[in-house]
This record gives sequence, structure tokens and C-alpha cells, in this order.
Amino acid sequence: MSDRTAAAPGFPITHRNRVRRLHERGRYDTAAIYAILDAAMLCHLAYVIDGQPYATPTAFWREGDRLYWHGSSASRMLRAQSEGIPVCLTVAHLDGLVLARSAFHHAVNYRSVMAFGRARRIEDPAEKLRAMTAFVERFFPGRTAALRPPTTQEVKATAILGMRIEQASAKRRIGPPVDDEADYVAAVWAGVIPLATVVGEPSPCPRLPEGMAPGPDLAAYAPGRRLDAALAKNRAMMPDAEP
Amino acid sequence: MSDRTAAAPGFPITHRNRVRRLHERGRYDTAAIYAILDAAMLCHLAYVIDGQPYATPTAFWREGDRLYWHGSSASRMLRAQSEGIPVCLTVAHLDGLVLARSAFHHAVNYRSVMAFGRARRIEDPAEKLRAMTAFVERFFPGRTAALRPPTTQEVKATAILGMRIEQASAKRRIGPPVDDEADYVAAVWAGVIPLATVVGEPSPCPRLPEGMAPGPDLAAYAPGRRLDAALAKNRAMMPDAEP
Repeated sequence: MSDRTAAAPGFPITHRNRVRRLHERGRYDTAAIYAILDAAMLCHLAYVIDGQPYATPTAFWREGDRLYWHGSSASRMLRAQSEGIPVCLTVAHLDGLVLARSAFHHAVNYRSVMAFGRARRIEDPAEKLRAMTAFVERFFPGRTAALRPPTTQEVKATAILGMRIEQASAKRRIGPPVDDEADYVAAVWAGVIPLATVVGEPSPCPRLPEGMAPGPDLAAYAPGRRLDAALAKNRAMMPDAEP
Repeated sequence: MSDRTAAAPGFPITHRNRVRRLHERGRYDTAAIYAILDAAMLCHLAYVIDGQPYATPTAFWREGDRLYWHGSSASRMLRAQSEGIPVCLTVAHLDGLVLARSAFHHAVNYRSVMAFGRARRIEDPAEKLRAMTAFVERFFPGRTAALRPPTTQEVKATAILGMRIEQASAKRRIGPPVDDEADYVAAVWAGVIPLATVVGEPSPCPRLPEGMAPGPDLAAYAPGRRLDAALAKNRAMMPDAEP
């Protein structure tokens, strides 16, 4: 990934987000970074409480250069993050196992983003309600129209956090193994075993009336489809969606 | 997940690993924790450098109560971790989207583990070589027999880090949505859209001789198979494999 375009809009490169290892795989332009973020639902949030680092998996979404996640108002993680502490939000897609002809050159194909910022809790109830709606709409476009509005108590019990991306970098590996020239003669299978997260057959709630089928809000999640493609498609339907 | 068995071998529960939110989903017994770890290849490592938290995705493996990962000797992350700094190694499997009848009760099905310890770098070349071999064997049992041994330079260029699990907790959600009683009449599809990471058709290296098929070391990765099942199967073949 050495094709970083200097003219493309991107994030400032500092000691924090500079890709050091295999830097030819690193990118800093927003298009590359947003594409990887928008193909994901799950991120891992790194934060520190009393010197102890934590990596917490959570669902997240992006609006412009802001990332949002949510949880319970009673969550220790979210309470700590409310203070404006630095966080690192990481997304990784595992795309394949790379089988090389020496142990040293084994690898994985992947796409990843590390985004840095300071978590801020959204306190304003109206803004919280908007974000709760955006969360559902980002993953299931049109679904909120079929749901009752959240109650005051539900808004209260929900904590929404967000951060502006101050810095970010994307990294990826694609393609076949790269072996030492002398090793290509080795009599061992080499190549890539692709991996993808895919959608299964929907399993209706046991209390759902007979014959009710998933609505258009779930159309992207057709059985057999790649999750990253479904998520990217739904992200593109957000009103604010930008590259 | 309220079926924690007090008598089962497990990790000590302290302020660091106690599952606070939805604690009925939390478990501390090694069987539950190891099963989730052993079904994964990718973890996210949280660590702190100069007050800044990072979550770095990386491949890892388990031997007993020890977790290992590797990287380049030149990596900033691994150099920092060599000092014995506290880390949190997190694994998350995203198993499904849970569609409820109110925005508030939407959820995901998942299995996750957070493991805490102090990273130690393996300095001894013989122990490093053993770990490099274990890394390949854990994912591709029998493969090292077909590979040339790593060179002294390759061993030198590889950093292997490990940690003893001091504390850990597992968390999971399974099953259909749980809605407020009054909402079950809502005319909206509710249920679970299952997700799984699956193996694709192997893509041979362009420089592989015609007609060479993947060997028995890759048997677990049959096209269409779930990655978690393949990884768990291969983990069970490790000589030290314990529950």
C-alpha cells in the first residue's frame, strides 16, 4: 500500500499514528481509512483506568470524522471515558491466512485502522436520542420507523460516547505469500486461504407471528453475503454519508 | 451465562476482571475462557506508551495459561511490551445481529474474553525457536516438517512475547432478542441474523507448481467451514492441549 496520494484529504501524521512496521502498507488518507471503518460493526476500544490498559470490543459507527459507540450509563468503561480520556479505536478485518514456504514469511491478509481521539460523552438528551436513532439507522436503514421511540428512561440508561478522529492510520496486506527466492522450490503448498465473515439464515424470534419475513431494513444482510459488504452498503445510505 | 460453577478451575476475580455490566453473562472458569481463546487467531492487545493507549490487532496462541504473540524485533509495540508492561489481550467473536422490537433492546450475540497480564519478551534463542515452531504448528499442525528451519537471522528478527494470564473473564450473549413485554405485539421482524467467519476456496501462490493441492496441515480449513471450528480443532491437536 505504497500508493498514498499526498494530495488526498487525510489525517496528520505524528509519532502516534505513523505506521512504523512495514510502512509501505500504511495509509493516512480518509478514503482508505473510512472504507475500512465503514465495513465494520465491531471495534476494539483501548483506554486506561488507573494505569491498566483495557481493550473492549463494542459496536461503533462513523459520521464524518466522528466515531460513536454506546453502552450502559452504569458501565465502568463508559464512565471513565466520559472524562475525555485518550482512546484508540481499532478495527481489523481478517481476510486470509497466508501460507508461505518458510515459517518466517507466514502472514495474514487483513485491513485495519487505528483511530486516536478523546472520548466525550453526549449529555444532551436530544443529541443522545438522535445518536441512538442514528445507531439503529446506520445498521438497519429505515428500521426506526417501525419501532416505538425510546422512552425517557431508556435515553437516560444509555450512554453514548463519541470522539473526533484526531489521527488515524490504515494498514493492510493483500495478495500471495512473498518468499525468499531460494525457497520457491520447496515442495509445500503455498498460497492464501481466504476468510470472510458472512451472513447466515435469519432466525426469527420464537414469539414472532408465523410468516413474518425480514423487512427492507434488513435487505443488506442476505444469507451468504459478506458482512463487510453489507455494512458498507448500509453506511452509504446514511444521509451524511461522505467518502 | 449464569451457570458459573464455583468449583471449576478458574481465574481470581478482582476489580480488574469482574464483569460489571450484565454480569449474568460473565464467566471466570478456564474451560469457558480457553474455549473462546482457542477458537480465535486474532486478538487485540491493549497497552500504554507514554500515557497513550493502543489497541493493536495481532495473531496469538495459547499454551496452558500462557498467551503468545509475535512480531518484528523493530516493532515499537513489542519493544515497549518487552519491559513487562501491563497488557490486556481481548478476543471477540461476533456471532449475530439481534433485532429487537425497540431500539433499546437491539444487541449482538458474541463471545469475548479479556485476559490481563504482563508482557514478557522471550530472549533465549532456543525458546524463541520453539515458540516460532509452536506458532506455525498451532495453526497448521504438521506444517513445519515441510519447511526449512528458521535461520539465525530470522530468529533474531522475530520478537516473541508472552504473558501468563493473571486474570481473565469471558462474556457472551446468545439467543433471541429479549423485549419489553408490551413490545412483543409490534409489527416488526425480530430475531437473530447469524454471523460467522468462514473459510473460502484456497488460492494457490502463482508460483506454485501445477496440480499441487493443500496438504493435511491445512485440512481443518475446508472451504465453507467456520474458522472458529477449524481453529478449535487444530488447537486440540497441540501436544500440550488441555481443556
